[in-house]
Amino acid sequence: MQQTRLDIDRIRAARRVIDPVFLGTPLYRCEALEPGLGCAVSIKLETANPVRSFKGRGTEVVASLLAERGPRAVVCASAGNLGQALAWSGRGRGLDVTVVASRFATAAKLDRIRALGAGLELVDGDHELARERAAEIARYDGIRLVEDSLDIETCEGAATIGLELLGLREQTERQAELAELAELAELADNAPPFNTAPPFDTAPPFNTAPPFDTAPPFDAVLIALGGGALATGVGHVLKALAPGVEVICVQPLGAPAMTRSWRARRVVTTDATDTIADGVAGRRPIPAVLDDLLLVADDAVLVQEASIIAGMRMLLDHAGLVVEPSAALGIAAILEDRDRFAGRHVVTIVCGGNVDGDAYRRWVGAAPVPHKA
Amino acid sequence: MQQTRLDIDRIRAARRVIDPVFLGTPLYRCEALEPGLGCAVSIKLETANPVRSFKGRGTEVVASLLAERGPRAVVCASAGNLGQALAWSGRGRGLDVTVVASRFATAAKLDRIRALGAGLELVDGDHELARERAAEIARYDGIRLVEDSLDIETCEGAATIGLELLGLREQTERQAELAELAELAELADNAPPFNTAPPFDTAPPFNTAPPFDTAPPFDAVLIALGGGALATGVGHVLKALAPGVEVICVQPLGAPAMTRSWRARRVVTTDATDTIADGVAGRRPIPAVLDDLLLVADDAVLVQEASIIAGMRMLLDHAGLVVEPSAALGIAAILEDRDRFAGRHVVTIVCGGNVDGDAYRRWVGAAPVPHKA
Repeated sequence: MQQTRLDIDRIRAARRVIDPVFLGTPLYRCEALEPGLGCAVSIKLETANPVRSFKGRGTEVVASLLAERGPRAVVCASAGNLGQALAWSGRGRGLDVTVVASRFATAAKLDRIRALGAGLELVDGDHELARERAAEIARYDGIRLVEDSLDIETCEGAATIGLELLGLREQTERQAELAELAELAELADNAPPFNTAPPFDTAPPFNTAPPFDTAPPFDAVLIALGGGALATGVGHVLKALAPGVEVICVQPLGAPAMTRSWRARRVVTTDATDTIADGVAGRRPIPAVLDDLLLVADDAVLVQEASIIAGMRMLLDHAGLVVEPSAALGIAAILEDRDRFAGRHVVTIVCGGNVDGDAYRRWVGAAPVPHKA
Repeated sequence: MQQTRLDIDRIRAARRVIDPVFLGTPLYRCEALEPGLGCAVSIKLETANPVRSFKGRGTEVVASLLAERGPRAVVCASAGNLGQALAWSGRGRGLDVTVVASRFATAAKLDRIRALGAGLELVDGDHELARERAAEIARYDGIRLVEDSLDIETCEGAATIGLELLGLREQTERQAELAELAELAELADNAPPFNTAPPFDTAPPFNTAPPFDTAPPFDAVLIALGGGALATGVGHVLKALAPGVEVICVQPLGAPAMTRSWRARRVVTTDATDTIADGVAGRRPIPAVLDDLLLVADDAVLVQEASIIAGMRMLLDHAGLVVEPSAALGIAAILEDRDRFAGRHVVTIVCGGNVDGDAYRRWVGAAPVPHKA
């Protein structure tokens, strides 16, 4: 693999500075989804943490560096998830966090940013205008600008998901080992069931040690594509350690700038976005991120809004998961191209779960009924 | 503490035979819930796994023993979650699993039991009749009867949650340590950010080592009370390792048999149950389980159906979690007695997420709209 900006040793080291509450997230086969999709599906769930998205992995790296080396004031533009995560990570380390967002951003995300104690400035435009304004604030105030996907910490934080995906093979091996032990025990069935009391810390749920010398049990990973931190991060780890796994990025047809750029192998911008997947609705890809993406992505596909909604509904009805539109992009991609995935084992990263209640109820086909909270 | 039937060393050892997919589940503060509850709330999430409940912890222990020592055929009565979990654990180990359930059980649970390849027999009565029928099958066929809460493996499997709860303090300590490091770094700010590349397996997300010699950051744990496996399991660990934590069991007013028994200090049965919390709707407490519960529970409270529904709604609206009624009992208990919990830090175990879609939509205040899956 040609060199991306990312580094496997730094990604491994990042695990040490990320609060454990963001690490070792659930990774499991979801068989109830499979009849409807025609392939084996495993979910990597990034919503069960204090900010309900994967972004805490990156902001923990950013904030721990700032807390060590300063400056202690920081600003970012955000569609809402990065801002929440930076607010959370900064609060615990005494940083002064400002978030710039579009006034059209998901209200639930903006509420959480405020509740976490960050300063919030709204711009009367889309995410690209928020990016400009955040850069301006950083310049005028001389504070640190965190640029999602450009700043390597955001990519390498997200990349820790890739390391955990490759831990899945350990589970599979363990199952095989258990089956083998069971067969042996049938022959000599006098082994006491509980004959050892190991120290508690020898059986962590996630203790895979590289090098990864066996193939993982899945053959494709579907990754929501927005600015590119998640895709280049996870893609880098997979291409470095499990190059046989297909890395497929998924973006809405209504916000296709990065996908078009990947296909053209040069930055392509768009004039507007039109998608409910607010978390990935950028218009101006960052050249350095595109360069990385060109090295690690095997494909980038675009999906329709109806498929995103169908994906959200399937995740609710068959997996019991409330997800935001960006987190349903992977399921949407399977729904739009069943033949491609038939019989394969696919991992989809459920990257966020921050939704406005009424919009969500509308999307999943249930009318909102007024009620006291 | 007087002796329960449970054993801490066996509980630690149980972690070695439980598939990691059920271990190290998310444990996190959910601040968005807190304004509505008036106390700090952490969630222990047991729904993000292949069977969407905590029951896999116990059935993994049961099935691994059976796979080692036989018999290889097994039957259980179940309201739906134990049956799914036993079907899952048995399938991976080549066991022949039969589940007996009430024909009034949650349809989604029965569907999943069938999909996992177990034999399913329905009885025309409630869960207590299913228990009788399962015992009958075991006697006639000479196969193993798994009795939830009576069989020590089901309690000790569930008890591994207690060990993980006590791991929370490690996260808190780590936050404090990070803050301290940050302060030191401000004085001498030339420390390189990434100066070590530890082997990957040195930073597992959950590596707490007992003995637990500091107080945990929470002071009460709310546990759904049904047959008692979860309550006696988690309660045993807490009373053994963190006796200052209040162990509070919560049961619906419509299925109060175990709570009444706990209060009377002798088995009290009821003639019927009337609750949506199907997972905890028993009428005939098991004497040995009650004896254990008397040793580990500090309190047992009963909550109204309206509070359970309000709890489910809060978990959806403010935590993005789809939970079954039993999993909302803890939140219901806080809602009914805010003064008791005001200003405290409470952990609630979200023990299951298997619901019928239409019933769920009705409970959370959204009318079902027909749609294709």
